[in-house]
Amino acid sequence: MKVKSLGEFGLIDRLTKILRIDDPDVVVGFGDDCACVNLDGKLMLFTGDIQLENHHFIKGKIKPEDLGWKLVSINVSDIVACGGKPRWGFISIGIPESTEYSFIEGVYKGMNDALDRYGFSVIGGNTTSSEEIILDLFLVGETERFVPRGGAEEGEVILLSGFTGCSRAGLELLLMDRESYEDFEMRLIEKHTRPEARYDLQNLIQRYARSCIDISDGLVGDLSHIQKMSGVKLVIEKDKLPVDPDLERFCKKYGKDIYDYILYGGEDYQLVFTVNKQDTEKFKDCFKIGYTEKGSGIFIKDEKGLKPLKERGFEHL
Amino acid sequence: MKVKSLGEFGLIDRLTKILRIDDPDVVVGFGDDCACVNLDGKLMLFTGDIQLENHHFIKGKIKPEDLGWKLVSINVSDIVACGGKPRWGFISIGIPESTEYSFIEGVYKGMNDALDRYGFSVIGGNTTSSEEIILDLFLVGETERFVPRGGAEEGEVILLSGFTGCSRAGLELLLMDRESYEDFEMRLIEKHTRPEARYDLQNLIQRYARSCIDISDGLVGDLSHIQKMSGVKLVIEKDKLPVDPDLERFCKKYGKDIYDYILYGGEDYQLVFTVNKQDTEKFKDCFKIGYTEKGSGIFIKDEKGLKPLKERGFEHL
Repeated sequence: MKVKSLGEFGLIDRLTKILRIDDPDVVVGFGDDCACVNLDGKLMLFTGDIQLENHHFIKGKIKPEDLGWKLVSINVSDIVACGGKPRWGFISIGIPESTEYSFIEGVYKGMNDALDRYGFSVIGGNTTSSEEIILDLFLVGETERFVPRGGAEEGEVILLSGFTGCSRAGLELLLMDRESYEDFEMRLIEKHTRPEARYDLQNLIQRYARSCIDISDGLVGDLSHIQKMSGVKLVIEKDKLPVDPDLERFCKKYGKDIYDYILYGGEDYQLVFTVNKQDTEKFKDCFKIGYTEKGSGIFIKDEKGLKPLKERGFEHL
Repeated sequence: MKVKSLGEFGLIDRLTKILRIDDPDVVVGFGDDCACVNLDGKLMLFTGDIQLENHHFIKGKIKPEDLGWKLVSINVSDIVACGGKPRWGFISIGIPESTEYSFIEGVYKGMNDALDRYGFSVIGGNTTSSEEIILDLFLVGETERFVPRGGAEEGEVILLSGFTGCSRAGLELLLMDRESYEDFEMRLIEKHTRPEARYDLQNLIQRYARSCIDISDGLVGDLSHIQKMSGVKLVIEKDKLPVDPDLERFCKKYGKDIYDYILYGGEDYQLVFTVNKQDTEKFKDCFKIGYTEKGSGIFIKDEKGLKPLKERGFEHL
């Protein structure tokens, strides 16, 4: 049986069962944005994410500084989604011998910019030679309260921290490989190449979010993790979904369905989370996009009523 | 300028300068077997090591169970070399879609065997598709005292925890690709495919070692890190170097110079360390192979006198 036939989630499910966790200090193991351990009363978070040449990036299509920035940001995003602050990073790299040093130098400068932004350090690493560039970053974070994917209950409000769909539009623009782009197109491209983790929301998420996930696989794809792990019904109100004006122009120009981007576009690294009604107002710049109810499934509500949303966040295998 | 022209250590030196560490809780950053942070008085260790297909292993030449075992063991070895115990692991894998599930399953079973042996758990992970198999393990450990590479001073005794050179002989035997091997050859092969971290020495290393490193790049190659970072002269007494009887047979059979293996063979994952004279007897099963003096360089001493040892531990780039 080939790995392909299992799919990413089928594979992960089987493999994590082989690794028995037998440690009372482990608060959360596999299956969330971070693992979490209790170290003498301190909750420490672990996460890691890789950027692999020709899978996550194409060398000629991304500035090395952006790649380094993105590597740090997507990992910080996972820590924040669990309510935490990043503390220390450890970087593992594989580099083909023929790589230009200036490329790797650019990656590290971009990483350093992001580390300055988020306020922590990468303190160790490991280097090997490889066929394609491998950038694997591991982060250790810290939180006062672990915010899980599976913490949503009925009667909560679903909040979204910003626009979705822009990163996918940016990627499609990049892949058009044009000589020049309009200004709004450049902004969309930048959303893809230089995403920001929503570290500004860390303290509020830590205090008030009942469940949270960061959007890497698309709004619906990631909401489906909250839905399944929480065992509630999620209702998204279509007219409350925030629409980025640049994305609107993009969809008009290229004849695309904007909700295909908003609901299913990946790699925006916004946060989607649930809170108790009385805490909603604390999240001033976030969008109330729906609510939780008793039941199961994810639904979209418009003037015609409720419609189930198909899951099709992308798998990596 | 290509990365190749910098070499592994030249590259690491440049890159680590880009990542400024600005954190008073960081006790040790780049350049040792582990990084170390002070977390409210607790010393935590971070390390990571990768096994990359066609660079560190060839799929048809190693049992997947051995590969998983080795991945865990080589990381534990780094933690022990700094005086610590492994606490938690995080695994990042890249798998080609066409990989047989049974291979990956075997890797995870081997990892789990090693985790049972060393008494800790892998608690989180990340999966992606890739062209070649990538197995990247990060470990977090804990120690009461950080044992650095650079802690040796003059007047100390150099101890070695076991035989060296066997792993390289085992690798060469494997690469002969024969249909059958003699018993002693199988034992050498197993030293290569299923190394053991010297976790049994953890407590003694933590308490008494002044400097320590694990032998991945060869005895001389790794001693040169202790030498340079400590700023002392190291003298190895040739007749005190332990000689594995199987390695002796191997060298006789194939007409090899045994000291080429003992001094320069890699991946044995024994520990070489220095202790104060009065602590030597605490390490009952270790070999006293030399001593430190004021000065610099690594020398070998035989009946003819002192001879400088050339450095040629292998670089990975």
